[in-house]
Amino acid sequence: MMEVITTISEIRTRITKERKAGKVISLVPTMGYLHRGHQSLIEKARAESDLVVVSIFVNPLQFGPNEDYDRYPRDLERDKVIAEVAGADLIFFPSVNEMYPVKPKTYVEVNELTNQLCGKSRPGHFRGVTTVVSKLFHIIQPDFAYFGLKDAQQVAVIQQMVEDLNMPVTIVPCPIVREEDGLALSSRNVYLTSEERSQATILYQSLQKAKEWIGEGITETKKLKDRIRNFIETQPLARIDYVEILSFPSLEPVTEIHSTSQAIIALAVWFDKTRLIDNLIINQNEV
Amino acid sequence: MMEVITTISEIRTRITKERKAGKVISLVPTMGYLHRGHQSLIEKARAESDLVVVSIFVNPLQFGPNEDYDRYPRDLERDKVIAEVAGADLIFFPSVNEMYPVKPKTYVEVNELTNQLCGKSRPGHFRGVTTVVSKLFHIIQPDFAYFGLKDAQQVAVIQQMVEDLNMPVTIVPCPIVREEDGLALSSRNVYLTSEERSQATILYQSLQKAKEWIGEGITETKKLKDRIRNFIETQPLARIDYVEILSFPSLEPVTEIHSTSQAIIALAVWFDKTRLIDNLIINQNEV
Repeated sequence: MMEVITTISEIRTRITKERKAGKVISLVPTMGYLHRGHQSLIEKARAESDLVVVSIFVNPLQFGPNEDYDRYPRDLERDKVIAEVAGADLIFFPSVNEMYPVKPKTYVEVNELTNQLCGKSRPGHFRGVTTVVSKLFHIIQPDFAYFGLKDAQQVAVIQQMVEDLNMPVTIVPCPIVREEDGLALSSRNVYLTSEERSQATILYQSLQKAKEWIGEGITETKKLKDRIRNFIETQPLARIDYVEILSFPSLEPVTEIHSTSQAIIALAVWFDKTRLIDNLIINQNEV
Repeated sequence: MMEVITTISEIRTRITKERKAGKVISLVPTMGYLHRGHQSLIEKARAESDLVVVSIFVNPLQFGPNEDYDRYPRDLERDKVIAEVAGADLIFFPSVNEMYPVKPKTYVEVNELTNQLCGKSRPGHFRGVTTVVSKLFHIIQPDFAYFGLKDAQQVAVIQQMVEDLNMPVTIVPCPIVREEDGLALSSRNVYLTSEERSQATILYQSLQKAKEWIGEGITETKKLKDRIRNFIETQPLARIDYVEILSFPSLEPVTEIHSTSQAIIALAVWFDKTRLIDNLIINQNEV
């Protein structure tokens, strides 16, 4: 029977007991409102470890003042069903007061990798992410932690943090899960009106187009970005935040796609107040 | 027989084995050139735990460009003797390349507490300290970590980091160890000429004087600081960096010493190129 634990002291006690019993512990950190993307992370964790912890915490620290913290969807009862079916052993569901009893003075910051893409559009976002993920890693002390590649920059940033700070955890990046028409699953998709939802497939379609263009020999990133922009702009409700092509996971500018090195095509597109992201990793040599 | 381990992978393997055997693990993080102050930390760790690890690492990240990183005293053979006699089980002695194989992008930063005292005089110093201590905590995963109160601000900053980031370690602050004439032990004392060494007792003496003045009812911090400054300046070789009285461990300005709350009198004084620090905690309610 899956448990829900809300306090740090209780989950520490529980985890310590499991660790002493020699169990391999996995963590799937989420902000809840779970979908099939999260489900795939939990299933993978289940297959690879003894104790699967899903954390659900909408972290105020990673939202900007004008972002959607207040309206971010929350539904613990629904999440419990999805997590349990996918194989979670327990849900860690702390309150904001449990995680931040006083205003924190300490932050974990990853430089360079956070200056572009979502880090540029959302100042302070990744500082909030790395700080809360550090806290979760210290509370749960997992052997493995699972993250979806829809947030590819987040995966790169967390991987960098783990390496730089010698955190004793292995990050497992997992493939994007999509709707049948290609839209990447996101808790934020519920914000979309039916018209926006229908036009939102343009993100995936533009990535597929880009793949075709690269196949046809168009490897200059400036040209590819222009084509992607034009393609996305065929949808009247789409407002581009960014279209970028960078090396991956180092997230540095590249002028050409090379067959020997990994690159990422990353998109962020607004539909009214809803910001969607998607990406394609080219010449992917892992995951 | 005490061991010296130089690689992260080797110490991780060793610690994992010890932890599985149920041992309580202590860490005494140092920059080496051990003295009786370090010795007291190691002895306390020995008395309170099963495995005592002393790390020796002169951390370049916590030295400013014009500071004494290059000339900081180093003597592993001497340190081995002192650590072993004090009861250490192993020394972790990594190279700079082992700790920073590439330039790190990730930093742990504690705000507010680092804006005054040594944080103000040595910009970036505490960021270097908290980052390397995070790394050591992740590598060794100690149950307890021992720090000397000579670096009282460091203790406050690390304690704040541990609380804010929920690090699974207990910080044990330990009293200052002094020479017979009151000079606080420091690896940097070897820099002093005999004349400087003789005048350097003014730090301790001024703290003792301050205690007397407080006993006589002088509790206004402005008045106390002026008196301490004047007292220190009686030594011609002493150049004051700071004389401060703050709440402890919150390190906020206080105008009066109150009998019910902890405060710190903190000093930093230059003798030529050598910077010495010392402090007195008033109404100390722990340690």
